[in-house]
Amino acid sequence: MSSDSVRFTVVAGNTRTAAIDGISAAGATADLRRHTPAADLEIVEFGEPLRAPVTPVSPSGCPTPAVVTRAVLERLDVEFTAVDAGLAAPTGTVTVDLDGAPGRDIRERMAVPEAATVFDSAREFGVAITADELLVGETIPGGTTTAMAVLRALGERSAVSSSLPENPLALKREVVDEALAASGLAGAEAADPVEAIRAVGDPVLAGAAGTVVGAMDAGVAVTLAGGTQLAAVAAIVRHSGVDGPLTLATTTYLAADDSADVQGLAASLDLDLLVTDPGFDRGKHPALAQYADGVAKEGVGMGGVLALARRRGVPMDRIRGRAVTLAEELQSMTKAGEH
Amino acid sequence: MSSDSVRFTVVAGNTRTAAIDGISAAGATADLRRHTPAADLEIVEFGEPLRAPVTPVSPSGCPTPAVVTRAVLERLDVEFTAVDAGLAAPTGTVTVDLDGAPGRDIRERMAVPEAATVFDSAREFGVAITADELLVGETIPGGTTTAMAVLRALGERSAVSSSLPENPLALKREVVDEALAASGLAGAEAADPVEAIRAVGDPVLAGAAGTVVGAMDAGVAVTLAGGTQLAAVAAIVRHSGVDGPLTLATTTYLAADDSADVQGLAASLDLDLLVTDPGFDRGKHPALAQYADGVAKEGVGMGGVLALARRRGVPMDRIRGRAVTLAEELQSMTKAGEH
Repeated sequence: MSSDSVRFTVVAGNTRTAAIDGISAAGATADLRRHTPAADLEIVEFGEPLRAPVTPVSPSGCPTPAVVTRAVLERLDVEFTAVDAGLAAPTGTVTVDLDGAPGRDIRERMAVPEAATVFDSAREFGVAITADELLVGETIPGGTTTAMAVLRALGERSAVSSSLPENPLALKREVVDEALAASGLAGAEAADPVEAIRAVGDPVLAGAAGTVVGAMDAGVAVTLAGGTQLAAVAAIVRHSGVDGPLTLATTTYLAADDSADVQGLAASLDLDLLVTDPGFDRGKHPALAQYADGVAKEGVGMGGVLALARRRGVPMDRIRGRAVTLAEELQSMTKAGEH
Repeated sequence: MSSDSVRFTVVAGNTRTAAIDGISAAGATADLRRHTPAADLEIVEFGEPLRAPVTPVSPSGCPTPAVVTRAVLERLDVEFTAVDAGLAAPTGTVTVDLDGAPGRDIRERMAVPEAATVFDSAREFGVAITADELLVGETIPGGTTTAMAVLRALGERSAVSSSLPENPLALKREVVDEALAASGLAGAEAADPVEAIRAVGDPVLAGAAGTVVGAMDAGVAVTLAGGTQLAAVAAIVRHSGVDGPLTLATTTYLAADDSADVQGLAASLDLDLLVTDPGFDRGKHPALAQYADGVAKEGVGMGGVLALARRRGVPMDRIRGRAVTLAEELQSMTKAGEH
């Protein structure tokens, strides 16, 4: 089996855009969604929330993809690095701090005033990565809407996925239209990708794109571990003038979302595409079965680490079993009021 | 870099279905298409046709994907095995002989009388493979039509791609309707997958599926190197009761073919999907630019070996350069009348 060294990083942050009613399922309520990225990092690192006062579940009770990612990492020899691009709530994990801040609602004139700082800090972090291969994932509720806005600002296809089974595309388009208008970008392309993030993006897009640009500069093979948010990262990378090989690794649930067109995005951004089927519809796992019904779909690097697990020959049923156990433990903790 | 042992096999054969006017671009004329699979094997093995009296090009002059596959193999440490599932013309390569024969026009009552023999021989071949990983490709003009027929006979989605830029789907459907009717399968599902091949398939489907089933039995990680024909192979494998992990690795040109729905096929057959962008639209290579325009798209294992090249860090521009040189050499040989 392969013995390449792999580093896995999750870029975490918040945007006030997630507070818009009906826009995200990455947390049960808008208030709880504030804690989702911090909790996701803790679940990946420790298997459970530590400082975060909540276990992220969707409004329908679907567990965060972080439990799947954690289940994979327990079986792989992979270095994990949590990156704080602009968290709104404290996390108990050690993070690389990119000097960012939570993003504003993109309907304001400027969404991420610190975009250039975060991008540059992230690029320095990326250049310093010494692994053969880097997987980059994200956690930011509301991130598909900000991704859509940045894709639009860059003149790219802007079909994006959703953590909800019924993608609230009309709502997203309305928010994005308002965001572009507020930033003077309605009908115009942003001058450069960092400008697009500053105007209508989120801190995670800046942090992830900067990391990728830096790592590619350093000759590291990069896999974007996620769906349409990571495709937006790819668009930022391409618009930064970087045209080396880049893979988008996602789940079959995200790829099956016709509203998202991840295949079209990959083709137009010169990305290789890797779609892994974790088989959550097999076996009797109600906690995971929701994924097969289109809830959550992707996030916290899940598609990328599943692909790595497949490549390294880890049986998928072991991962499913462990993810279910983790999800059940988290659920019982929540019920017991520990958080 | 990875040091897994990889075996690459191309299953070759013919079907009289390819003689139907307008159905295939895998060879300039119906008569020349008879020699395409034999010539493809020689190009992969030697870099040029040996006994085959023709260099396969599409009616528009697009070179066979075999030149791309050859260009990749020259840079990778991969064992190549040519498999004869039913060739109509002699080849100068050493082949594993599956005791097959060329397939009949699927509009006849029985398309592949030897289907069970070929499948069983192939399974024995597959079980004996000792590599860590096996890539399985195909070369058979007319193969997307027989693939569509077998997918229909098995009750699966039956959108297939084409070696022509304008997929002659109406013609294919008409041929498939006639084929299913002639075999008593109109509106009925075949009793088993080998029965479906016998009725409306081709010898390559039998040879490739048997090889995959055998190799998976032997614990070899299998990648189906191709598009909708290999998806039909996956359908045969799944209907044979084999549900282990299986990857379909194809090109961005095949994946971009909306008439083919390779993503939907992969999802419904529980396949991981790997799409590689070889960037033939970049640089000034008229010989390869046709791929980016939707000619040929895939074949002779091209998508699978390109993915392997990417994984092993072979620069794609080197492969493009070598493929262009090979294509030009073949073209000048043809013009000089050597064949």
